[in-house]
Amino acid sequence: MKTAIYFHAGCPVCQSVEASLINAIDPKLYQVEQVHLGKQPQRIVEAEGLGVKSVPALVLDQQVLHINFGAALADLK
Amino acid sequence: MKTAIYFHAGCPVCQSVEASLINAIDPKLYQVEQVHLGKQPQRIVEAEGLGVKSVPALVLDQQVLHINFGAALADLK
Repeated sequence: MKTAIYFHAGCPVCQSVEASLINAIDPKLYQVEQVHLGKQPQRIVEAEGLGVKSVPALVLDQQVLHINFGAALADLK
Repeated sequence: MKTAIYFHAGCPVCQSVEASLINAIDPKLYQVEQVHLGKQPQRIVEAEGLGVKSVPALVLDQQVLHINFGAALADLK
């Protein structure tokens, strides 16, 4: 089982991506951890280190996927 | 079974998204159709109509997800 991390900020764009794409990920392949950066600001540094520039973003196989655009990471600080 | 359409142009960004995210979609939920707009330019109008602005893009539940950025749709014409 691989782990995917979905970084979001509870924004409308984030929620719509969560409702569609994140729920479409095969649970046999990935365990998806959801991280709300507004509620867990201490993890912003981790997200930055992974290459996340904006939310919503999904880190899958160490690959950062920026999906649509909700907010810049810098604006969450 | 719902249908998802993955619009791409064979670009490196498109290929990396395909290798990770598209293959991670639960086949029990979605049948993913892959459309190479470089090879099927007649479908650019269809993509535009769905709201696709750039590739790679995944249309899931009629929701357009622009994932990272490979090329603008306008540049494929």
